[in-house]
Formats: sequence, C-alpha cells, structure tokens
Amino acid sequence: MRNIKLVLEYDGTNFCGYQRQVEDRTVQEELERSLSHLTEEDIKLFAAGRTDSGVHALAQVVNFKTDSQFPLETFVRGGNSRLPCDVRIKDAEEVAPDFHARYSAKSRTYRYVITTEQRAIGRYYAWYFWKPLDINPMNEACSQLVGNWDFKSFCQANANTDSYFCDVKFAQWSQHNGEIIFEICANRFLHNMVRILVGTMVEIGSKQKMPKELFDILGTKDRRYASATAPALGLFLVQVEY
Amino acid sequence: MRNIKLVLEYDGTNFCGYQRQVEDRTVQEELERSLSHLTEEDIKLFAAGRTDSGVHALAQVVNFKTDSQFPLETFVRGGNSRLPCDVRIKDAEEVAPDFHARYSAKSRTYRYVITTEQRAIGRYYAWYFWKPLDINPMNEACSQLVGNWDFKSFCQANANTDSYFCDVKFAQWSQHNGEIIFEICANRFLHNMVRILVGTMVEIGSKQKMPKELFDILGTKDRRYASATAPALGLFLVQVEY
Repeated sequence: MRNIKLVLEYDGTNFCGYQRQVEDRTVQEELERSLSHLTEEDIKLFAAGRTDSGVHALAQVVNFKTDSQFPLETFVRGGNSRLPCDVRIKDAEEVAPDFHARYSAKSRTYRYVITTEQRAIGRYYAWYFWKPLDINPMNEACSQLVGNWDFKSFCQANANTDSYFCDVKFAQWSQHNGEIIFEICANRFLHNMVRILVGTMVEIGSKQKMPKELFDILGTKDRRYASATAPALGLFLVQVEY
Repeated sequence: MRNIKLVLEYDGTNFCGYQRQVEDRTVQEELERSLSHLTEEDIKLFAAGRTDSGVHALAQVVNFKTDSQFPLETFVRGGNSRLPCDVRIKDAEEVAPDFHARYSAKSRTYRYVITTEQRAIGRYYAWYFWKPLDINPMNEACSQLVGNWDFKSFCQANANTDSYFCDVKFAQWSQHNGEIIFEICANRFLHNMVRILVGTMVEIGSKQKMPKELFDILGTKDRRYASATAPALGLFLVQVEY
C-alpha cells in the first residue's frame, strides 16, 4: 500500500474547521470525498493540525494510504478537479509507510495577521484592530516564550489534553505595509493557543498591559489571567516541519 | 452647499458593479443608502469610474453635495458604520463646488493581477492562468500603447461612446511573488478595455501571438481581432488622479 503526503492551501472562511464533523462543512470531509471519488477507495486522512472554524492554511499537511497506482500529479490535478475552489492541493509526495502527518511532525509554524486599517479587500484574512499598536513591547513579551513551558494559561478551558507543555522555537512580531504579523513555531500547539497569545499581546501593544505580564500569566497556569481570544480570521497555518 | 469627495475601497466579488441598477446589488446603491441615512438627505453620488461586476477598487473616488455640517471624519465613520463590510470609505475631503469625481479626473490607474498558481486564499483577487507566461514580449507589446490612440479594437462591441480615443500615459507588466501584474494609466478607459488588452496580451506571453500583433490589432479598430476578455476578478481600480 502507498502512503501519500499532500500539502493543502485553504481559505477557512466558509469551513467549520479542518476536522470532520457530523453536520458541518469541513476541509477533511471535502478532501476525503474528493480523493475517495478519484481512487474509488474509502480514503481516511491524517492531518498535521486541526485548524478551527475560520482559520486558514497555506500549507497544511495530510497523509493517506491507498492502493491506487496513479502518478503523484494525478492526486493533485484529479483531487483539485473534484474539490471546491476554497481548498487546493498544492503538492503530492510518496512517503515511507510509517510517515504520519500528525505524529511525524517536528514542529508547526502559525502566522497571525492584524490590520490597523479597516479594509474591504482581504477582510477575511486579517483582524482589524483599531487601537494603535507598538510592536516593540509585544516583541519584548514574546521573546520570553521561547523554550519549553506549560501553556495552560493560553489554552481553551476544558481542553482534552494530557500535557500543556509546548516547546516554542521562535516567536516574533513584524510589520509590513500596514499589517502587523506574528509568527510562532513550536513542536505542538494547544487549542486556541496562538489566538489567546495574540489577544493578550495586543493589550501589551496598546499599553493596557506591561510586557512582563505575558510571562507572569504563563506562570499562573490559569486561562482566566490571559486576555480574550483573538478572532479566527487572522490565523494561518503556514508550515509543518518534518 | 458643501461638495464632499470620498475615497472608497471595495471588494467587487458580491457586487453587480459600481453603478446603480434597478434590481441588482451595487456599490452606488449601498453607499447612497448609507449616506442618505447619515445625513437625512437624498444623496446622489458621482463616481470617477463605473467598475463592472466583480471588479475591485482600492481607491475609487466619488463626490456628493450636502447641506450637512458634519465634520469630515463623520462621513468616514458614520458612513462605514452603515455600510456592509465589502465596501469601506477610506477618506473624506471637502472640495471646490465645481469638483466632479468623473469630469475633473485627469487620469485613472488600473491594475490587473494574474496568478500562475491556483490558490484558495485570495482566489477572488487574481486570475489563475495555467500556461507559462513570459512578461518580456508582453512588455514589448504594451510599450507601444503609450500615446493617444483609437482603442475601438479593445472596447466591448456596441459600447455607447462618441470617441474611442484614449491617451495612455503608462502601461507595464511586472512580477512579484508568483503574481504577474499589469498597471495602466490613461485619461479615460473604454468598456472592458483593460480586460480585453489583458486577454490579448496573455496570448502574447504564452507564444500564441507575436508582440507586434497588439499594435496591429489596435490599427484594425475592430473588436473581432482582439482576444477574449479576461475575467473581472483580477481587475482593480487603484488610483484616480486630479
């Protein structure tokens, strides 16, 4: 049996997240339907990250097992021709039998985009934040996140997880053409972790909190000390490293 | 009476163009409704360019007369709060009584965006063209357009116009991050002119036509010699100069 790895781009706006649900439209459901139709098999997908409703992906990674002997290019073209236009297969690769999109991943990189100008074009791809933001204190705060920490304060309450430890390799804010962009790379992410971090750091950037408070909140291991979750529409899964 | 000039951004995807129609949703209708509600007057708008269904604007210019004494900032904030999220007022300015968004304009600049990779994110903001494109012959062709020419060959048949002459000040292709971008500035544009020019030039860039053919087609003054009209979704009105 072949093990096929796909790289996906999707616009999360009209999806109820990646993971298959009984009633709602999901990326997994659309893709399994497309690939099952193409291969005439019952395709089951494994994904690197389960993005939430409204969250986008530039390079989500999934894998599936198949007996199909199609050339790799057919999974891209044939899959895309059976998919709606808000999800695209960018690449297909044959991988070792033990490759698993989720468990083999060494790290994931997410990007969060904030716009300081209200816009019509691309309005589903950035969070409009109307208060002025200074990225210097935001960078001062997030530089302290690098390392292996318990992120329970920045995880949705009642999350179903054994461990809250995440090893953050990189976390930085930058500014380009009126956009304020956060990029963070870690071995794993907890539910809503990037969005709660962003929601807390915009309070630092708008002078409602001091930079050191981010690390203090981390220490409490209590979600109630962190700020509101930033909206889904600014978040992108940009890369999965193996 | 005051004469107010507004700069607008809109996402043309869900509009049947700028200009008011009896039944369909248009930018003009939404904006006149918003400003009439704000000022409690019957606001009539004049626009620099009547963009078609699906065409976007980064900086459309409109003007209207009003007795309202609101500060300019109120036209922006109060107008936006009464508008749907796919149209935004970016700026308001008080102008001389004889200023007319259409007749006072010296030139307009349009941008057309082509993507060579099929994409999910931003799929309504670029035309996906699957054949390889070489922008060198496309630039060789469009450099010949600069000047005052009869553009009847690049105008939708049966257009309602007295003159087909347009004075092109600038026309150039460039390439950025997988996007191939055409920018053209002229005193005026005919109906579908940019889209027919783009449709013809992609045939030059994909070696179906020679660069000199663009100028030959211009000389025929016959729409039938030009190629198919490129889709609306790649076109942006980016600037109006006064």
